[in-house]
Amino acid sequence: MSPEFDLIRRYFQFPTRHTELGVGDDGALIRSIPGNETVVSTDMLVAGTHFFADTNAEGLGWKTLAVNISDMAAMGAQPRWAVLAMAIPDIDERWIADFARGLFACAEAFGVDLIGGDTTRGPLTLCVTIIGEVPPGCALLRDGARSGDDVWISGHPGRAALGLAHLKGEATVREPWLEKCLAALYRPQPRVALGLALRGVASSALDVSDGMLGDLQHILERSQVGAEVDATLLPRADLDAACHDASLVERCMFAGGDDYELLFTAPVGKRDVVEALAATLPLALTRIGHITENAGLSVIRADGTVFRPDRLGYDHFQT
Amino acid sequence: MSPEFDLIRRYFQFPTRHTELGVGDDGALIRSIPGNETVVSTDMLVAGTHFFADTNAEGLGWKTLAVNISDMAAMGAQPRWAVLAMAIPDIDERWIADFARGLFACAEAFGVDLIGGDTTRGPLTLCVTIIGEVPPGCALLRDGARSGDDVWISGHPGRAALGLAHLKGEATVREPWLEKCLAALYRPQPRVALGLALRGVASSALDVSDGMLGDLQHILERSQVGAEVDATLLPRADLDAACHDASLVERCMFAGGDDYELLFTAPVGKRDVVEALAATLPLALTRIGHITENAGLSVIRADGTVFRPDRLGYDHFQT
Repeated sequence: MSPEFDLIRRYFQFPTRHTELGVGDDGALIRSIPGNETVVSTDMLVAGTHFFADTNAEGLGWKTLAVNISDMAAMGAQPRWAVLAMAIPDIDERWIADFARGLFACAEAFGVDLIGGDTTRGPLTLCVTIIGEVPPGCALLRDGARSGDDVWISGHPGRAALGLAHLKGEATVREPWLEKCLAALYRPQPRVALGLALRGVASSALDVSDGMLGDLQHILERSQVGAEVDATLLPRADLDAACHDASLVERCMFAGGDDYELLFTAPVGKRDVVEALAATLPLALTRIGHITENAGLSVIRADGTVFRPDRLGYDHFQT
Repeated sequence: MSPEFDLIRRYFQFPTRHTELGVGDDGALIRSIPGNETVVSTDMLVAGTHFFADTNAEGLGWKTLAVNISDMAAMGAQPRWAVLAMAIPDIDERWIADFARGLFACAEAFGVDLIGGDTTRGPLTLCVTIIGEVPPGCALLRDGARSGDDVWISGHPGRAALGLAHLKGEATVREPWLEKCLAALYRPQPRVALGLALRGVASSALDVSDGMLGDLQHILERSQVGAEVDATLLPRADLDAACHDASLVERCMFAGGDDYELLFTAPVGKRDVVEALAATLPLALTRIGHITENAGLSVIRADGTVFRPDRLGYDHFQT
């Protein structure tokens, strides 16, 4: 470890709040709440694949941790600790300082302690492993959807993808919606409060990172059921106002990742509970369809036509 | 996630032995032994920085996990779970199969469940986060070395570096030692049994990954002490037989990482215990010096000359 890298590491030392031993030894020491289950998830973000190399460093710091916290939300877990491994091509102290500021802003917002890491030289790559806790048997899994359950989505999926399309010159997004779309893209808000509230309510859940329809397929496969989604129910008023290309809007809603909204199922009997949650959080929670006994996913459009996306999601069934 | 990447992921699904829920959901679920502390460590390996891109894939799979297990050994922890995030430039199924075989051989040898991961496209980068367990207060830390303690090293440090020097054409290493040197380089054996046995015995410990002297400095800094190392005590007979370049041999011993031996301190009163351990494990455990009250590290060579490496390790003080 060169002295430059040693210096860099200092940017990632921040007081911990619920950790026995943080950065600086061969490993960190943490202590779980007795009886709880521990939830673990890891994600790797690569420059050029997941983000532009010249992305704003502070936003990237936020997002690197946020996408992992989102996995805890999807499990109904309380995120508590994270480790960060990163390869950087050269030492740009300003970049590091900005990245660390964004990362710790996210850590603080969601009560996560950064307890360890590894910094090395290489093509810009970021890897967070996050650890959370959930009482035994309370985790939200992908395999619990049952025929007749409602299918719900949080927030306004598609905003992040529409913001990205604007940046790429594929669409023109108007203010004030552009700001919302770019916020969704650069500063996604993991739905932790929602995930915790859905314990005992949702029958299955995941966070949408690859696109709503593609991710819904994961629930259907694991639960061995099918689903009908009614495209007219989707919360698209904002997107339609933001951009007049209806086809692009639909594509962003169905196939856009990066919003990190929660997609979940719940028995019909929990409809009132979910609607009450929407009011108290507050967060848009929209019922977009229902689970069917027969396998397969059908999307019913406003004109009555039915699409049957295969398991690869939306892009693949575009005509 | 493309279908090719989906296929790749299947190589990393292996039955787990002590895990509530493994690969396939937003996170894995594990349950610690009640009352134990959880130990967490992460390491990133980058092609071109940590290994040659054309390194044997099976060996790389072993080593990727082994270096993380070594961190658990250094903490006196029982390694139990790991997640793997990897970026790969393209889909070479043969390479993936070989890599996974090496990784799971190591996982099985040390009782580690692979419970999750992430596979993406990018420059070849491997990131393991490992999770282990230790009874409360039993972890081996870096900050417990006290004046008068013995300094110990396990195994034969320098073998891996000498093997690498041979491969680079900087040295000629003879058989049968070459085989041992390459085994140390390609298939390091994390000292888990030693780490567990050192609970309550060692006053401090770490695993040597950056070079013995540089890593010893970490113990000295955290413990706020100094040390005297007697170069004539080092277990170098094998290395001297393997290679006639005495200067290179010394450099490999002092500055070579990659052996993942444990460097630890223990009170003089524990000398018999450590020597008995060496016999029962069995594993060479060599007393190479002692801790001093005054800060700083001195290395006394056979000719009586004294070197005082600074905190950057060995390279930096070469004349």
